[in-house]
Amino acid sequence: MDDGGEIQRLIALMAKLPGLGPRSARRAVLALVRRREALLAPLAEAMATVAERARLCARCGNLDTTEICAICRDPERDDGLICVVEEVGDLWAMERAGAFRGRYHVLGGVLSALDGVGPDDLRIPALAERAATAREVILALNATVDGVTTAHYVADSLAALGVPVTSLAQGVPVGGELDYLDDGTIGAALRARRAL
Amino acid sequence: MDDGGEIQRLIALMAKLPGLGPRSARRAVLALVRRREALLAPLAEAMATVAERARLCARCGNLDTTEICAICRDPERDDGLICVVEEVGDLWAMERAGAFRGRYHVLGGVLSALDGVGPDDLRIPALAERAATAREVILALNATVDGVTTAHYVADSLAALGVPVTSLAQGVPVGGELDYLDDGTIGAALRARRAL
Repeated sequence: MDDGGEIQRLIALMAKLPGLGPRSARRAVLALVRRREALLAPLAEAMATVAERARLCARCGNLDTTEICAICRDPERDDGLICVVEEVGDLWAMERAGAFRGRYHVLGGVLSALDGVGPDDLRIPALAERAATAREVILALNATVDGVTTAHYVADSLAALGVPVTSLAQGVPVGGELDYLDDGTIGAALRARRAL
Repeated sequence: MDDGGEIQRLIALMAKLPGLGPRSARRAVLALVRRREALLAPLAEAMATVAERARLCARCGNLDTTEICAICRDPERDDGLICVVEEVGDLWAMERAGAFRGRYHVLGGVLSALDGVGPDDLRIPALAERAATAREVILALNATVDGVTTAHYVADSLAALGVPVTSLAQGVPVGGELDYLDDGTIGAALRARRAL
């Protein structure tokens, strides 16, 4: 295609986004040009701002445009509770649930022998420092093999501090049907059964 | 979510793109921040350029960043052939096929009584002007009801010029299997059968 070098360049860049291919990138660019004032210009500006200013919070590892993130700055949140998550996306998921009003600590990944990720690659020493003054550390790592391994490692490395370390409950998802659940989840839910 | 106003704003804008929802917008933004130099900054710049400079070619209606688009400027292309398409996306599809080396004319839509699109809303008068000096006008409109209606209207309005008006052949798609084709297409292919 030899039409519009700059437009084709924009399509090529858009096609690199996860979830967009060449076809949906073309559709997106046409939609953007149609909504130039309402969408394209603000999006360009928002991207430039984030490109320039996005950084990880020096305290918790959350993604924000300030040295200390909005959650760490919020005076309403409970300093005694630290929720440990793998990635920023997990922190966002916890926030959407709206059930937690403490602070976060983003590890920045999980231990993985296969990918060569060791304890020194994660923000575990920083966590130990923060956990020393906490009332409870809640591990909200993914229920994958690497996530569970990491949870055990983190719990071990915090054991000397004497701070209670808990983890998210495993069981039947809300609205979940037994017939569609995997055996492992049903087994875990049975073992963790509670009095009604 | 009260974390990172600017990052949440970028996510909200990205989620307005066709093909992206809130979840994929979050994924895309995380991927963008991870590839800040390679993807986010160039994308912000490309969007700003296109937001500022994108325009429809004054001659053919193609989308470009110049007054006259690259296709209309190309001296290698045949001025005698004009391919009429509905939208810029259709022009791009024709160009990808690489089978046409003439000029284009983008109508900017199709006639539609339902949507209140009449002949004056499309670039039909401009087409008549250009067609007067052409050797052939090829209608490459979509094979939808509105597309076919528009094709007939365009052919009628060019009839007085005496320029041959053709349209894309209908038939079995390359690689298509009869068993999966609709009856209308099979009927059209049969009626348009050719000697082997």
